[in-house]
Amino acid sequence: MNEAAAAAKTGLDFTLLAEDGAARRGLIATAHGPVKTPAFMTVGTAGTVKGLTSEQVRASGAEIILGNTYHLMLRPGAERVARLGGLHRFMNWLGPILTDSGGYQVMSLQELRKITEEGVTFRSHLDGERHNLTPERAVEIQELLDSNITMVLDECTPFPATETEAKDSMERSMRWAARCRSAFTRRPGYGLFGIVQGGVYPNLRRASAEALIEIGFDGYAVGGLAVGEGQAAMFDVLDATVPHLPQAQPRYLMGVGKPADIVGAVQRGIDMFDCVLPTRSGRTGQAFTRRGSVNIRNARHQDDPRPLDPDCPCPTCADYSRAYLHHLFKAKEMLGPILLTRHNLHYYQELMAGLRQAIEDRRLDHFVADFAQQQSGGDIAPL
Amino acid sequence: MNEAAAAAKTGLDFTLLAEDGAARRGLIATAHGPVKTPAFMTVGTAGTVKGLTSEQVRASGAEIILGNTYHLMLRPGAERVARLGGLHRFMNWLGPILTDSGGYQVMSLQELRKITEEGVTFRSHLDGERHNLTPERAVEIQELLDSNITMVLDECTPFPATETEAKDSMERSMRWAARCRSAFTRRPGYGLFGIVQGGVYPNLRRASAEALIEIGFDGYAVGGLAVGEGQAAMFDVLDATVPHLPQAQPRYLMGVGKPADIVGAVQRGIDMFDCVLPTRSGRTGQAFTRRGSVNIRNARHQDDPRPLDPDCPCPTCADYSRAYLHHLFKAKEMLGPILLTRHNLHYYQELMAGLRQAIEDRRLDHFVADFAQQQSGGDIAPL
Repeated sequence: MNEAAAAAKTGLDFTLLAEDGAARRGLIATAHGPVKTPAFMTVGTAGTVKGLTSEQVRASGAEIILGNTYHLMLRPGAERVARLGGLHRFMNWLGPILTDSGGYQVMSLQELRKITEEGVTFRSHLDGERHNLTPERAVEIQELLDSNITMVLDECTPFPATETEAKDSMERSMRWAARCRSAFTRRPGYGLFGIVQGGVYPNLRRASAEALIEIGFDGYAVGGLAVGEGQAAMFDVLDATVPHLPQAQPRYLMGVGKPADIVGAVQRGIDMFDCVLPTRSGRTGQAFTRRGSVNIRNARHQDDPRPLDPDCPCPTCADYSRAYLHHLFKAKEMLGPILLTRHNLHYYQELMAGLRQAIEDRRLDHFVADFAQQQSGGDIAPL
Repeated sequence: MNEAAAAAKTGLDFTLLAEDGAARRGLIATAHGPVKTPAFMTVGTAGTVKGLTSEQVRASGAEIILGNTYHLMLRPGAERVARLGGLHRFMNWLGPILTDSGGYQVMSLQELRKITEEGVTFRSHLDGERHNLTPERAVEIQELLDSNITMVLDECTPFPATETEAKDSMERSMRWAARCRSAFTRRPGYGLFGIVQGGVYPNLRRASAEALIEIGFDGYAVGGLAVGEGQAAMFDVLDATVPHLPQAQPRYLMGVGKPADIVGAVQRGIDMFDCVLPTRSGRTGQAFTRRGSVNIRNARHQDDPRPLDPDCPCPTCADYSRAYLHHLFKAKEMLGPILLTRHNLHYYQELMAGLRQAIEDRRLDHFVADFAQQQSGGDIAPL
């Protein structure tokens, strides 16, 4: 099947607005509104972006969030969310939502799960109850949640894996992808994404991309990365994979990443990202700034009246000092994680906005050089 | 000293706008803005109202918050807060702040503290370090914090106490109150409040009130209540105390209380309240509503699409269902305590606004009757 035919099958309208080298500036139209790409999707694991109201998430610049099928299927349950009007209404996030398939979390249960050709059986980490996750059920759950972008169930190939292991795993994922495509209900403004696997092996990545294109999806994800292979190997995989993906659909690098990972992946033609890093780091006192990362628990901040990031327009930096944030973390006050999470999400969204503008202006190389220089400059000097 | 002389000494302007029976509708002018009374002061123990940004606290209708001297003197330290521009700026709360004297928390340390005529020595619950808290130091700390309303250091008489114990304790508190008055720096828009003690003994309460009026304060608090004596005994103490307090200054019932306690105390002429109940209950899943209290952790809420309180205009009730709030608490998500705290603070502020309007309209009796009927009606029926 050629690209035009694949595009005709799409339930998601994707418009390419500008290109700069391999990097793309685009727009995804979903039933719950548009998403400007390159986009960072904030992770709302169990129906909440930890510590923030949905208004605060929106105010960070987020247009789309990610929900985790594994967590939501166990609690509160997909059928319950459907009865309550879907995940958007349940969590008061009225914009687009992408859900993962649950596969990644289930695979990581190790002793508690068993994989067969049919799917995965596993025991809940909450109560030990047995559950089945097949490609068809993964799609059904995501449809019950009313997810705008459904991800196919795949096997996240472990790292490291031999070429034979990676090939067997990838080929099973491709058979599961075809079953997901058959199970998926096409609706305007809703889409299904395939996931390229194949470990660190360029020939497998290419074969996986071609197999998915043959099936035809609304978007193509690169999976199985950010699992310990390192940035250089990750970029190598992108270099070996992205050229084989269609121009006309969005490309999503799953679970990535650090700001520098995102910048490098955008240069390589990736349109979408998700990562727990800004939220999880925010809860433990690590802030992302234009001058690299800052550990607010460090005693050098205890008398510092300056904001986390003097160049940041977010409400945390406008209203609160490092000294105050340091105090909140030392006193284990909830507001510390809240304010740092809010800052980190703003930082990530500002980074994406900067990347989008740079691509439109065809000066991405300058943006990347400035970014690298800023990040290597170190934190503001002590007072 | 008569009332007019006491008023002349005030650094806080208090205007009585309306009366209905013993109840009063007033306005306190502070250097950081006005406070409509009767007022509920949200507790921001350690420089934060737990779980909420200062914008969210303001949006709840709060005009004044309370800071705890004990917590702040230990961490981050009063001198540090002063160097950072005072507590308002430190915590980004630009409205009025009242601070307690630290006495209540220090007294409750039991084995870790020792009381003498000079003051209290105690060991920090954080690191065991020894600290002194004298009447003079309590005032100094509150001035370093830039508190708009400073409370005198007093001994919170234990309950139960014999009349002799209550008398000895009260008389020491009166000597400390005079030392606080001497130590306090008079400034426009800042005030010092005395605290009436005397346990459940009407003659001691009256003697304490008269002693404080003789010293002369900007406001008068009733202390040593809400320590296990019960609502009836508390109201008896108010009936025996409030008639002996000046008309021209605000009256503050410390550490109170449940909604019904506040309503009854307003009827008895109290102008100001503080209590951890709405914030602490919010964190444990207990919500205050117009139909009594609701435990959101109860399984009967798990499929309920309705808000906590159908008559509540707060953002939690506008945007989130009981089913969602239940899910957040079951999943131990931070957003549960955040959303319930926000609702509870709105509920308390709506209650105070209703009381103020009823006094202005001279229909407080009707308001109280409606309130009692609503509260006794029970939660909304299951679907």
